[in-house]
Amino acid sequence: MPFYKFIPHEIKFFDLFDRQADKMVEAVICFKEFAEKGIFDDSCIERMRLLEHQSDSIAHDIIDSLNRTFITPFDREDIHSLTNKLDDVVDLIYAISKRMRLYKLKGKNADVQEFSRLIMQSVQSLSIAIKGLRNHRQPQTIQQACIEINKIENISDQLRDVVIQRLFKSKKDPIAIIKWKEIYELLETVLDVCEDVSNIVVSILVKQG
Amino acid sequence: MPFYKFIPHEIKFFDLFDRQADKMVEAVICFKEFAEKGIFDDSCIERMRLLEHQSDSIAHDIIDSLNRTFITPFDREDIHSLTNKLDDVVDLIYAISKRMRLYKLKGKNADVQEFSRLIMQSVQSLSIAIKGLRNHRQPQTIQQACIEINKIENISDQLRDVVIQRLFKSKKDPIAIIKWKEIYELLETVLDVCEDVSNIVVSILVKQG
Amino acid sequence: MPFYKFIPHEIKFFDLFDRQADKMVEAVICFKEFAEKGIFDDSCIERMRLLEHQSDSIAHDIIDSLNRTFITPFDREDIHSLTNKLDDVVDLIYAISKRMRLYKLKGKNADVQEFSRLIMQSVQSLSIAIKGLRNHRQPQTIQQACIEINKIENISDQLRDVVIQRLFKSKKDPIAIIKWKEIYELLETVLDVCEDVSNIVVSILVKQG
Repeated sequence: MPFYKFIPHEIKFFDLFDRQADKMVEAVICFKEFAEKGIFDDSCIERMRLLEHQSDSIAHDIIDSLNRTFITPFDREDIHSLTNKLDDVVDLIYAISKRMRLYKLKGKNADVQEFSRLIMQSVQSLSIAIKGLRNHRQPQTIQQACIEINKIENISDQLRDVVIQRLFKSKKDPIAIIKWKEIYELLETVLDVCEDVSNIVVSILVKQG
Repeated sequence: MPFYKFIPHEIKFFDLFDRQADKMVEAVICFKEFAEKGIFDDSCIERMRLLEHQSDSIAHDIIDSLNRTFITPFDREDIHSLTNKLDDVVDLIYAISKRMRLYKLKGKNADVQEFSRLIMQSVQSLSIAIKGLRNHRQPQTIQQACIEINKIENISDQLRDVVIQRLFKSKKDPIAIIKWKEIYELLETVLDVCEDVSNIVVSILVKQG
Repeated sequence: MPFYKFIPHEIKFFDLFDRQADKMVEAVICFKEFAEKGIFDDSCIERMRLLEHQSDSIAHDIIDSLNRTFITPFDREDIHSLTNKLDDVVDLIYAISKRMRLYKLKGKNADVQEFSRLIMQSVQSLSIAIKGLRNHRQPQTIQQACIEINKIENISDQLRDVVIQRLFKSKKDPIAIIKWKEIYELLETVLDVCEDVSNIVVSILVKQG
């Protein structure tokens, strides 16, 4: 079989990953919008649920293509990990939105807004890294994006510490502390998971290197 | 060496995984029984400890066989992951039982009982998926079981949200909230880990596909 | 290219892992010292931050060497996992120190001290296991160290249960319970992560076996 026969499969995987990355960015745009309005109501949750569902569908398409494809652009296991971890980002944002509603945490919160901006920056870099896999012979773009993701994770780590310290100082109600502590830690975890995805991207680069 | 020489090793691995799956189901039967009685006392913990120990022994037998076997029915790493994650299910059920006793959470609790029923359904499907690995040329059985596990995980996710929402509404004592919130989240995590195991089973299928 | 040309690379990896293991032990010595004094202040955090930074640098050197080396002493993915999980140990100890300061948990605490002794024992065994990878044809040393790490993890599990039970009995302030419960669980998690690292070491042994 001539080599070009394989190319369509490769392109398909890259296209699917691009779509999954776009869906992740879309979910974060949505989350950031709600954070800025300070509203996590039923219609917000419904929009997030839809995005989560769409991200899930793309992940399933990727796994399906994997089952039906003999040659893949990189390791089968890496395709598996990458799509699952990407899906985790969207899952987590959806879970946080649901928790905000469940805890009836209403009103604009500057810290939630700040986290949502960091998450936005991180997923934009992540999207660049993932789309860079198509041209892995120019690894600088990916490497720069991954350095950026790592930096943002460090900033979010410090933000969480500052915010939780303030929480214990300002709030005397233990139930409010339980709720907000969880939300802030979940928000920081989104940045951790973005970094996990970027580590998978780097390890794919390493193997192709 | 003729090919049939290898077969005994393959059979041994499948037998060991069957035994580990059975032990997991046994642990859940035990947990469900205690949940229905509403009693997590010393004798309950002792029975769970024994089951956890037996599951551990089987996991060790699998790793030992791995060390002494050249040809394995599937990837060495997958055998490692599968046995470790299966052991995690039993570990977690044992940990929840210990936490129930530690927190002195006595009496029948309809939500704990509902979770125990979902866990029962999930591990039964998981057991079917694992036993299906023997006949991976008929992947439909495994795929159906894994779809079922995924469905149950979604249901348990919703159950946890409903139950935690009710908890924050009904209880005013923050210490009671801390305890029950943890128990409900651990119970839901069992379903997550079952789904993790089923994902490993699927990824084994993918590689053999 | 003659075979001996590859040897330097192998030695380099082992040297880097030895250095990372030493850095981990150093971080734990530091943590144990602060636990014994009962002081987690700015100068403590600064020392821990430095150690965490140094451990991070070694991890980056390992990944860099991986990118520039064709032949490695064991699987590229295992090198990746091992260095990342080792880094997690130091990260976690640093995070616990920061949390102790953030929560203003001052004064000597016998339970924190007991955990710090268990962590010390575990990382010492872990260091032996990692340094044993150089001579993987004598796997007994590694296996014994890993059995020891597993034993310590079991002990720490029981310690955490006892300590948390006592916490709920002795403290009536929910906010104090929230803080200490988190610290004790993080301390126990260090032992879990040490066991995770030892499992990676064992799985490297298995593949080379």
